[in-house]
Amino acid sequence: MNKLDALPNILLLGPGPSGTHPEVYRALTSPTLGHLDPVFISLMDELKGMLQQLTHTRNEVTFPVSGTGSAGMEAGFVNFIEPGDSVLVLINGVFGMRMKDVAERLGARVDSLEFDWGTPVDPEAVKARLATRSYDLVAVVHAETSTGVRNPLDEIAPLVRASGALFLVDSVTGLGGIPVTLDDWGVDVFYSGTQKCLACPPGLAPFSASPRAIKRLQNRRGKVPNWYLDLSMIVNYWAGEKRAYHHTAPINMIYGLHAAVRVILEEGEDAVIARHQSAHEALVTGLEDLGLELLVAPGHRLPMLNAVKVPEGVDEAGVRAAMLRDHGIEFGAGLGPLAGKIWRIGLMGHNARPEVVSRCLEALGACL
Amino acid sequence: MNKLDALPNILLLGPGPSGTHPEVYRALTSPTLGHLDPVFISLMDELKGMLQQLTHTRNEVTFPVSGTGSAGMEAGFVNFIEPGDSVLVLINGVFGMRMKDVAERLGARVDSLEFDWGTPVDPEAVKARLATRSYDLVAVVHAETSTGVRNPLDEIAPLVRASGALFLVDSVTGLGGIPVTLDDWGVDVFYSGTQKCLACPPGLAPFSASPRAIKRLQNRRGKVPNWYLDLSMIVNYWAGEKRAYHHTAPINMIYGLHAAVRVILEEGEDAVIARHQSAHEALVTGLEDLGLELLVAPGHRLPMLNAVKVPEGVDEAGVRAAMLRDHGIEFGAGLGPLAGKIWRIGLMGHNARPEVVSRCLEALGACL
Repeated sequence: MNKLDALPNILLLGPGPSGTHPEVYRALTSPTLGHLDPVFISLMDELKGMLQQLTHTRNEVTFPVSGTGSAGMEAGFVNFIEPGDSVLVLINGVFGMRMKDVAERLGARVDSLEFDWGTPVDPEAVKARLATRSYDLVAVVHAETSTGVRNPLDEIAPLVRASGALFLVDSVTGLGGIPVTLDDWGVDVFYSGTQKCLACPPGLAPFSASPRAIKRLQNRRGKVPNWYLDLSMIVNYWAGEKRAYHHTAPINMIYGLHAAVRVILEEGEDAVIARHQSAHEALVTGLEDLGLELLVAPGHRLPMLNAVKVPEGVDEAGVRAAMLRDHGIEFGAGLGPLAGKIWRIGLMGHNARPEVVSRCLEALGACL
Repeated sequence: MNKLDALPNILLLGPGPSGTHPEVYRALTSPTLGHLDPVFISLMDELKGMLQQLTHTRNEVTFPVSGTGSAGMEAGFVNFIEPGDSVLVLINGVFGMRMKDVAERLGARVDSLEFDWGTPVDPEAVKARLATRSYDLVAVVHAETSTGVRNPLDEIAPLVRASGALFLVDSVTGLGGIPVTLDDWGVDVFYSGTQKCLACPPGLAPFSASPRAIKRLQNRRGKVPNWYLDLSMIVNYWAGEKRAYHHTAPINMIYGLHAAVRVILEEGEDAVIARHQSAHEALVTGLEDLGLELLVAPGHRLPMLNAVKVPEGVDEAGVRAAMLRDHGIEFGAGLGPLAGKIWRIGLMGHNARPEVVSRCLEALGACL
């Protein structure tokens, strides 16, 4: 018996991967082409254009990194900082902490501003810090998947830009669910992931770098200490005239991402964002009807990732296990200081729909 | 009109990607599961066991790295060498050169022994070098995809083991087409790729590390300067009891690799290897009938990658273009010093079949 033929169909309402869109499944099985085939190269160009459209950027260097969202993070730091560079990381969850670890391993001098998990980055604190010190790069997570907090990019962006630092934004969970406007914000380095609101399996990291970032890359003192993620070579394949081979592109995953972004643009970015917001609001109403509370205050909540406080006396892991076993629904657990204290309920991409919210609430009500 | 729906079906006879096996296409569309779902974890365990079987190892740390074969190379060096470590790379093609570049970027002191492209690594030269210098790590490419040379692992392995160095083997193109016997050879660090003889799209790098290599990792002076590929954390997800989340695994690609390896083991490793050999022999006979010569001397040829000399006066790129346009067949070009001088004809995985060889020879005859 081949186990793959008997996989359960689970409704993925955790922090990602989310449910794969039917069009994406179909795309994954399109015939594999060579990575230098002219037809494949025209698909790459289309994908690049669609990613530029979805992230609102004119950055020439816009393409998917050949790894998951965390590879996007690695690429975002390893290309643009060198040993001794000063970096400020704004931290209010797991992924801010991860950025600090990534940057420190690369020899950067890393400062951080930390905020309570479940609260947003405070722009006033950022402003005060940037008034006293200058940094080569400032990094922030747009959508903190570990807590469900949406950080106020509109307020943080102008502060970082005024400081002269490169501005790095992680929107692994945000892209395709809330607006990502790279050029308006003045973002220099951006990455996302496929397995959240893009409704595509994990494996690629949509990435973009501004001309300013590329200039920094070109003026490095030393080679990028990571051959696989060295943008100075990868751009020759994704954006160069000669399409020089670097590493073999993940062909069929790129088909999947192509379909995922096309589906979003066809529905319309505004409609997709509104759909995420209204699914979120319906979920919150239903959770409150069940007597449950969210971790994050209104106004700072991500629509696609809802951190729900586990009520006193309720078995956190037991409820998740029952949801999976009896209802075929996956929730996420809390991480770090929030382990055992929250459930993370994702309504991402194809799952941000009223019928999914209803099924989720009904099952959760039965499990409580 | 959606371009993905109109992709041509190309017979991929280049250096990879090769044609995806029908069972692998099917696997790619199995329903996405969460990376901590118990059913997915049982699939990971099965895959690990199948990879151990195919590579003939008992290494606990055997799993697919979340990136293409080049990510496997990066992981192979970044985890096991540190700045100042001494490395010897045996070079007779592009991928040996790439290993040198990777290791140098990580601060290793890299020596190389170079051999003419198209000829194998000479074990006598290796022996002589290892008699005069000791190294922390010695690296070699098993199947040099750029030239079609099979390096004599059976002869090189005991020399490296006797020297005490860690032994790193790249078999991106070899695995699933010629024997890979890690424990018999005494290989410490191994990686491959999915898009060659495994007949799975590019995107993962089957990887294995010996207990000796893991001990070296545990005794590092500093952290691995690459968060994404840090094995000391990844093993907790792939082999740890607690299955701690590191990065989100590329779920559907792992399904594809699971199917790819299962298909090989079901056919039988010996039968698969024999099929590659006989397809190669049929191709060589046919090429000789067409008056063509191979670059590599008999006895050192890879069955799955055939480097064919372009006859005097023949338009190398023109023939490849005609093969693609008129016959729907992709060949590979030469790289580096072999650019314009050879075609690279791959018979990998699902394409190592008599009917594919016939179609290839017929088309090539028509184009010459």
